[in-house]
Amino acid sequence: MISNKMVGFVNNNSAIRAMFEEGKRLAKIHGAENVYDFSLGNPNVAAPMKLDAAIKEILDTEETTFVHGYMSNAGYEDVREAIANSLNKRFDTNFGVNNIIMTVGAAGGLNVILKTLLNPGDEVLAFAPYFVEYRAYVGNYDGILIEVAPDTTTFQPNLVEFEKKITAKTKAVIINNPNNPTGVVYSEETIKKLATILEEKAKEFGTEIYLISDEPYRELAYDGVEVPYLTKYYKNTIVGYSFSKSLSLPGERIGYLVIPNEVDDYSQVFAAASIANRILGFVNAPSLMQRAVAKVLDEKTDVEYYNRNRELLYNSLASYGFECIKPQGAFYLFVKSPTADEKIFLEKAKEFNILMVPGSSFACPGYVRLAYCVAYETIERALPAFEKLAIELGLKK
Amino acid sequence: MISNKMVGFVNNNSAIRAMFEEGKRLAKIHGAENVYDFSLGNPNVAAPMKLDAAIKEILDTEETTFVHGYMSNAGYEDVREAIANSLNKRFDTNFGVNNIIMTVGAAGGLNVILKTLLNPGDEVLAFAPYFVEYRAYVGNYDGILIEVAPDTTTFQPNLVEFEKKITAKTKAVIINNPNNPTGVVYSEETIKKLATILEEKAKEFGTEIYLISDEPYRELAYDGVEVPYLTKYYKNTIVGYSFSKSLSLPGERIGYLVIPNEVDDYSQVFAAASIANRILGFVNAPSLMQRAVAKVLDEKTDVEYYNRNRELLYNSLASYGFECIKPQGAFYLFVKSPTADEKIFLEKAKEFNILMVPGSSFACPGYVRLAYCVAYETIERALPAFEKLAIELGLKK
Repeated sequence: MISNKMVGFVNNNSAIRAMFEEGKRLAKIHGAENVYDFSLGNPNVAAPMKLDAAIKEILDTEETTFVHGYMSNAGYEDVREAIANSLNKRFDTNFGVNNIIMTVGAAGGLNVILKTLLNPGDEVLAFAPYFVEYRAYVGNYDGILIEVAPDTTTFQPNLVEFEKKITAKTKAVIINNPNNPTGVVYSEETIKKLATILEEKAKEFGTEIYLISDEPYRELAYDGVEVPYLTKYYKNTIVGYSFSKSLSLPGERIGYLVIPNEVDDYSQVFAAASIANRILGFVNAPSLMQRAVAKVLDEKTDVEYYNRNRELLYNSLASYGFECIKPQGAFYLFVKSPTADEKIFLEKAKEFNILMVPGSSFACPGYVRLAYCVAYETIERALPAFEKLAIELGLKK
Repeated sequence: MISNKMVGFVNNNSAIRAMFEEGKRLAKIHGAENVYDFSLGNPNVAAPMKLDAAIKEILDTEETTFVHGYMSNAGYEDVREAIANSLNKRFDTNFGVNNIIMTVGAAGGLNVILKTLLNPGDEVLAFAPYFVEYRAYVGNYDGILIEVAPDTTTFQPNLVEFEKKITAKTKAVIINNPNNPTGVVYSEETIKKLATILEEKAKEFGTEIYLISDEPYRELAYDGVEVPYLTKYYKNTIVGYSFSKSLSLPGERIGYLVIPNEVDDYSQVFAAASIANRILGFVNAPSLMQRAVAKVLDEKTDVEYYNRNRELLYNSLASYGFECIKPQGAFYLFVKSPTADEKIFLEKAKEFNILMVPGSSFACPGYVRLAYCVAYETIERALPAFEKLAIELGLKK
């Protein structure tokens, strides 16, 4: 018999993952080219050529017991130093080797920092819509995820409700910028207001409130939009990063945490996070991949590729009558469901072999998410299906 | 402020990891060749040449978005099938793709299965001496690790005490065979008795008791000793495996769980474990390394290398008057401390630049563990230091 906690998860498994499996099933029946799978954030852009070259170079030139062996739980020191230097150069920060912990992707990093910080009953705030796994991560440590309702006109954080929901039990806030699933980028103005609220509330309650910034989409911003680096706006900021999207390595599970010196109880937090990395069973981030990413920190993914997809998909869907905010970052479109219950919309779409995931998976029912990190041709082929769907739903005559 | 649980870990960090860090510090002062670091199970045998070749072949021939991309949370199906087939061939089992979940090493796998099974307050039995992290892993899910006292004459499991400690709250038993830290291999006879006790007690209490077999050292057995494959002896067995030691890949974090069809509530357990893999933040085992190990399943590490080390170190220490059981597996020597408090022995050894870890880290004070997965020359160079240590402690005249 499985644990009570897991029974709920099994009965109510990730809709995203379920759609991914459904997509594989449909592809077998109809052929992959006839299934329009917008369910998963699995980048279609290839990893930089230099990444594979870096892996080979490491295998050819570094000692194998070192490359595949244990290192400090926080990661190889030279790798952490290279990442600190790269961040300092890009964001005018002042990090060193002891501000970086290499992690098993951003999901690993978030779990590590939540394990580090949370006592049972501690509250963690998140702005809807948010990546649904946050609720599971917080629950892993018996924390309570407190939702801030979405502002569905702008999808910027609802700071009025946010301020009201901070209590003496608030231990952390998770933000995701650029945002999954909306593609919205939180502006510098928003971040400054958010920081001020946090400072005032921490003072009012005599508490420490950590801002956890989940940033796998940092490198994916369009139209020249700037994504503020949060450690510069609020001292108790911890950044979780992943190379999943920026280098197209989601399966490799490689990322890092940034824990600045300025964070309250820095030494304890850093030491505890290193240990949490070990005892949660990660032990350390994958060794070869640590060394490989350190060699390609200046590489960039093909943002223009995603931008073309964004323009085509957004403009086409809008012309068919779908309602959607034009995203400025990440590779998602968050579309208002033409039916009140978006599950009906999703089922209808599936009849046209279009796979998307429900907004209720992001605590924002009435919407659906499309991941446009697919081939441009997939979008082109999907458009007639979307158009028929729009006609069938009465959006288009 | 960090969580209460983590305060304890920070104040009482892993002695193994602390020694590893101490070894790096001493190496900087005295030179690496003058520090005899027996602290960490970090294999000195290189990974098989074919492993690096397999990685390069994959990079050259498989599509990069596939190789570095997301797959099902349980792992690539072809990889899981290759592993199932390999096990079936070697152990005459009958596993298929849906009995294997790829994990972030054995530590990841153990966390996944404990998350899957444990409710708060559930008891998990372990035979001392045991890998100290088990206590942390069980505690991650608010389970309670119940220790079975060691039989220090044979270091086989103490089955008399084991039987008495099984209660209605016992959800699982973890065994580690070959054993870290003793190097003892639990015999088939022992396993059969253990299985009978579990069956009887599960019947008596009307419960399910899962046997979790932690097997990173399966491939390291000497003197022709057989390591029984536990799923054949007890139906509720779940195997946690790692390629860390068998292919010298500890830093890569690659292993798997075996969940046989015969396990009670198999479908629930398999589904929950796949989800636990995701929500704990592993998401999936590192993708490239999954594909690489599947290509070298028939490769073997150089057991004879460790055997030479075992013979030299065991025979020499015995001749100096140290007391120790000759290990039949793994790459550890578990030596009786000549001082009642082994910490004194460890401090004295450190004066001779010998680093070992305390038995109290394995719930077995009065002993120390030496990891002999080091260069043969390191042992040769260390022997005079051990001899002086023996003389100073009055073991040798």
